[in-house]
Amino acid sequence: MSVPEPFGQRLRQSWARSDSALCVGLDPVRERLPSHLAQAPDPLFHFCREIVEATADLVCAFKPNIAFFNAEGAEGDLKRLIDHIHTAHPGVPVIIDAKRGDVGSTASMYARELFERYNTDAATVNPWLGWDSIAPFAEHEGRGVVVLCHTSNPSSAWLQEEPRGDPAYLKVAREMQSRDADNLALVVGATFPEQLAEVRRAAPTLPFLVPGVGAQGGGADELRQIFASGVDESGQGIVVNASRSIIYAGTGKAYAAASRQAAMGLRDQIRRARDRQQSD
Amino acid sequence: MSVPEPFGQRLRQSWARSDSALCVGLDPVRERLPSHLAQAPDPLFHFCREIVEATADLVCAFKPNIAFFNAEGAEGDLKRLIDHIHTAHPGVPVIIDAKRGDVGSTASMYARELFERYNTDAATVNPWLGWDSIAPFAEHEGRGVVVLCHTSNPSSAWLQEEPRGDPAYLKVAREMQSRDADNLALVVGATFPEQLAEVRRAAPTLPFLVPGVGAQGGGADELRQIFASGVDESGQGIVVNASRSIIYAGTGKAYAAASRQAAMGLRDQIRRARDRQQSD
Repeated sequence: MSVPEPFGQRLRQSWARSDSALCVGLDPVRERLPSHLAQAPDPLFHFCREIVEATADLVCAFKPNIAFFNAEGAEGDLKRLIDHIHTAHPGVPVIIDAKRGDVGSTASMYARELFERYNTDAATVNPWLGWDSIAPFAEHEGRGVVVLCHTSNPSSAWLQEEPRGDPAYLKVAREMQSRDADNLALVVGATFPEQLAEVRRAAPTLPFLVPGVGAQGGGADELRQIFASGVDESGQGIVVNASRSIIYAGTGKAYAAASRQAAMGLRDQIRRARDRQQSD
Repeated sequence: MSVPEPFGQRLRQSWARSDSALCVGLDPVRERLPSHLAQAPDPLFHFCREIVEATADLVCAFKPNIAFFNAEGAEGDLKRLIDHIHTAHPGVPVIIDAKRGDVGSTASMYARELFERYNTDAATVNPWLGWDSIAPFAEHEGRGVVVLCHTSNPSSAWLQEEPRGDPAYLKVAREMQSRDADNLALVVGATFPEQLAEVRRAAPTLPFLVPGVGAQGGGADELRQIFASGVDESGQGIVVNASRSIIYAGTGKAYAAASRQAAMGLRDQIRRARDRQQSD
């Protein structure tokens, strides 16, 4: 196998091709699936595949969340889904949300699982154990490593914003920036726009994966703030993730068409926020 | 199903019954298996089952590491292994090492995976995202939640020991202690004995899962230090984990007997460290 291009490069190509900063998160819950799928074989695969087909031209990436597949024993569905994205939509990166954080031989096993077994382009990882826990992922040539810098949830500040003055999340941002690698990126939640601006100052070139838009709150104002203070020097650098607000936009047999409408609306809202920032 | 006893209570019962603070970590790597197993079906299950049979009377707990099974697509082996431990050795808690850290609906999915799909007694979790990420596990009645407080790896200090003076790992320890729950425990690495003593002062009643003995270094002196400063008020409170030094103690068809010898040696070394502390 030839050495793949660095993840950062593939992400920039995807931004250029799609003209979109939207990432659709694939978090399928069996209880929320349309009834015609819930009773059929491999429901998680079929549900997500239809979402993928309905939105692939609107996104710069897909982000399946492994927890939702593991909870159902649906590893086969996850594998088929990722294979399908690569085959049907080559060039659209698959970022697996796994938030792994372990060291040494264990981290190598997770990297093997996420990058080799599932053949993903990038994975989210947790920095609590330090660089030991990130290195085994970063050593996989071409794959991306998306480090949890400042997450979008209410209790994120508890460790991430300590100590006041020189908080841990900025330490994470500076460290990842200092590695000068085109395969690192940061998770920075939409729900903390001031902190996102600080992270951009600390990490001027790293891509940000921004969760917390949509079901977790956020909206047009938040998107404008994110782009006003969060883009990199080229006006890019942002991947806005939305999961539930897209994949559960509709019910019944027309759910995928509703997902497309929701994704198109959010993509356009994101474009307006981005273009407004660029014209300012 | 009746409500299970709290994890803390089951752990105390296991300490009393086994008179052992040793936990054997089950981290099977296909490339390291004896050749007669490596080529057979379900090698991870069969390898670990023999280790379990050879050591179950010597341990207070088993700790399978899910990464090693996920890397091989061996979810079925993991499930069979845990079922086997419950059936053949009832009362020996199974702590799954998964180090999950996510929030809300995702954390609920991981809890469902680890506690319901695999029917484990406890799981390791990562506190970087705050209590939001621990609550969905702690809400599972009777199950244990083992929070990464100060890990055993070299780069652990990077975030965990910041800021000097009031480091994050002590914040984690105090917070978990303050919850006053009999289902919480802490991971505190053997490789940082001074920090372990501080964690015990901050968390006088929580059980500690102590990795880093054996393959990661450590020895008799370290064990004495751990017990001198790490036990709770009753002289218990410590689970010493060893993985590679036990499960790869031997090679070939007699590997399980070699594991038993290694486990017995370490159990006795731990007992001496514990009893010396109690007689001081």
